[in-house]
This record gives sequence, C-alpha cells and structure tokens, in this order.
Amino acid sequence: MGKRVALVLAGCGVFDGSEIHEASAVLVHLSRGGAEVKIFAPNIEQMHVVDHLKGSPTEEKRNVLVESARLARGNIQDLTELKVDEFDAIIFPGGFGVAKNLCSWAVAGKDCTVNDLVKSTLQAFHHAKKPIGLCCISPVLAAKVFPGCEVTVGFSKNEDGRFPDAETAAAIEKLGCKHISKDVNEAHVDSTNKIVTTCAFMCKAPLHEIFDGIGTMVAEVLKLA
Amino acid sequence: MGKRVALVLAGCGVFDGSEIHEASAVLVHLSRGGAEVKIFAPNIEQMHVVDHLKGSPTEEKRNVLVESARLARGNIQDLTELKVDEFDAIIFPGGFGVAKNLCSWAVAGKDCTVNDLVKSTLQAFHHAKKPIGLCCISPVLAAKVFPGCEVTVGFSKNEDGRFPDAETAAAIEKLGCKHISKDVNEAHVDSTNKIVTTCAFMCKAPLHEIFDGIGTMVAEVLKLA
Repeated sequence: MGKRVALVLAGCGVFDGSEIHEASAVLVHLSRGGAEVKIFAPNIEQMHVVDHLKGSPTEEKRNVLVESARLARGNIQDLTELKVDEFDAIIFPGGFGVAKNLCSWAVAGKDCTVNDLVKSTLQAFHHAKKPIGLCCISPVLAAKVFPGCEVTVGFSKNEDGRFPDAETAAAIEKLGCKHISKDVNEAHVDSTNKIVTTCAFMCKAPLHEIFDGIGTMVAEVLKLA
Repeated sequence: MGKRVALVLAGCGVFDGSEIHEASAVLVHLSRGGAEVKIFAPNIEQMHVVDHLKGSPTEEKRNVLVESARLARGNIQDLTELKVDEFDAIIFPGGFGVAKNLCSWAVAGKDCTVNDLVKSTLQAFHHAKKPIGLCCISPVLAAKVFPGCEVTVGFSKNEDGRFPDAETAAAIEKLGCKHISKDVNEAHVDSTNKIVTTCAFMCKAPLHEIFDGIGTMVAEVLKLA
C-alpha cells in the first residue's frame, strides 16, 4: 500500500493562495511515488484577493477552501476533517497564501501568529513522529511552531540575485531555528524533527528546476513516512 | 536559442477555466525543453464561475485574463497582443474553460462556435506552418477550425472505464476529422497540419501519467517547431 499523505492548501494563486505550480508538482511527485493523497484546506476567508494581472488587492471576498478546490479538482475536505492517524505524512506547498491565510508572516514576519487549526495539525504530526514536508515560504510555519528546528528557504545571502527574499533566512534564525542554505534542486532533512524543506520559488530558477527540487522534498518525505 | 512558444489559457480551474495541472505540466516540460514561453489569454468574461467545492455555478463574474494570470504568476498578456511571427509554436492546455470560454463546445458540442480571436490565432499559426499543441478537450478547437485534421482525445470507446467522455471522439469524427485512439502516455502527430494532441485528463489515470503524456506532446511540438 502506498504512503498516505495529506496535502494542505491555502487558496489558488501565488499572491493570495497556494503557489499553483508548487502544489501541482507535489501532486505529480506523490502520484509517481505511489502515495494515496487527500487534500485539505481551512474553511476561512482569504486575507484578501489579489488581481494577479495588476498585482494589487481587490474588494472581492474569496474562501480558502473553495478556491483551493480548484487545485484539487473538487476533491478536497475542510481541514477540520483531517485525522492524523489516517496519514503517514503531511505536506504544505508555498505561495503567499501560506503567509497570509495560514499564518500572518506576510504582515508580521517572525512575530506572526499561526492559524490555530494549522498549528494543532502540525503539532499532531510532529508528536506522532510523522514527517512534515514544506516548500517555498511554508518552512516559516515550522520555524514558528517548532523553535529550534532546521529548515531551508534557499540561500541565506542573495549573492547572485537568485534569492531576493534572503532576509527570510535571518528572520527564521531569530526564531531560534537553524537555517540551512540549500540550492533549488536540494531539500534539507531535519531528521530529529522529521521536517523536510526545499526553497522552490524562493529561488529565481527555471520552472523545471523548482519542479525537481520539490521532487527531492517529496521523495525524502515518503522515505521518512 | 530556445524555441519561442505561446501558451494560451482559458481561466484557472478545471470546471470553468484551464485545467491547472495540465497548464503547469506544459510549462514544466517547456522549461526543461529550453523554450522561451509567453502566456496569453483572451480579455473576456468567463461563461460562468463554478464553485469547485460544490461543483455548481455561482452568481460571481470573473475575467478569463485576470484568472489566467494566477497560473502565469502575473506574467501574462491579452491574446490581442500575440504576434504570430514572434513565435515558433502555440499550445492550448485543456479544462472546461476551453469548451466554455474559448469556444461553446460545452453547450453546443460539434455545432459550437470558436471565439473569433482564438480562431484567427489558430489559423495564423496553421497558415505559417507552425505547430499547434493541444491536450484534453482542446483538440476540439482544431477539429472545429481545421476540418479533416487528425486529433486524439484518448480512446474512442470507454471499454475499461478510463475514457468516460469517449463520445467526444465520435463528435470529432462528425466534423469530418479523423480521431486517432491514443493512450494517456502518447501523443498523436498530424504531420500535414502540424497538430499535436494528447488526451491528458480525458483519461482517468494517475496524475504522473497525465504529466508524462503532456511531456510527449510538448516534445513533439518542440521537434516540429
């Protein structure tokens, strides 16, 4: 039987939801790995709705679960339905939705709060010693919930212009965590905490390299599961 | 220099827009193939907005270009801006948005009309002998615009339950085209018309098989370009 993996989404679209290509890449790699996947999202209003053509917020209201259902082709459940004992692992793709809807990192940085249900879900997987996979900005969830853990969001310095959000690494260190610099094709495994992270779109890289890095993360998650 | 490929979207979400995983797969394979990609969508209102959680239409209004921008991470242009001489090939992912926003196949089947701009764009690439890649339900665009062409939307019979929309193949034949049965990992190349098609989500298959089939289609398009 394949490993049972829960995927948690935060909407649909890089600027106000889950990053679409990251979420899709996770699903492709899980499919190839023979995993049984169920998709979840919190049934809450999005922090805001961004017009992705203009790059600016609109007056619209959208729901995280309803928009996440686009990525899930309708096959999705309210995060309140997630039972930890029915899964071997959990994965959170990135996108601003993570930093806006699942926690308040986008506005408060390291002083953010994490959505209660997201926090208790992460704690339950951690407590059960089941692996947690995170990519792009999602590792800040682990940094906030599990002080002392090791994560990567890419390189901690933007030396070659490929890591414009390198200050995220410094903020993670201020939370008492250890940031490990890893390139886009790599994943970091915190074996103690069973947390697997990869930088994905935190790196300015061709899409197929981001896709492959997510594949590395997924493979490590399935290995630990 | 990489091949220059135009990708045309129809919204963002399988039930009222472009199928997200198909669009993402096309972009991953184009990236790996070294192509230079620009993304376009018509600046028109969606036929309707479907709540993907409930599977039913809502009262909302959304714009095809604005929603497609979610898949394009904001890097998208109005289809009116597409200049055929700046590209070597064009690709249309599938999803109901193709059958609702780019043509009226969802309501009229073989008697549908194709959006004028989509039609003239397809005709221009065809006239210039530049390849056209299509997947899932998008091959109906070619069937409607280029009578006599060869396309696949999977198997023409639903013998093993993997092709629930097999009647689409019959409708394509009624348009005077030749439907070629191909499995999800295959693509059909109509060399005369330079039209490359693969069934993608028209087949009930694991996501990574759909991803690989789209890879076959993209590779054939780049070969012809």
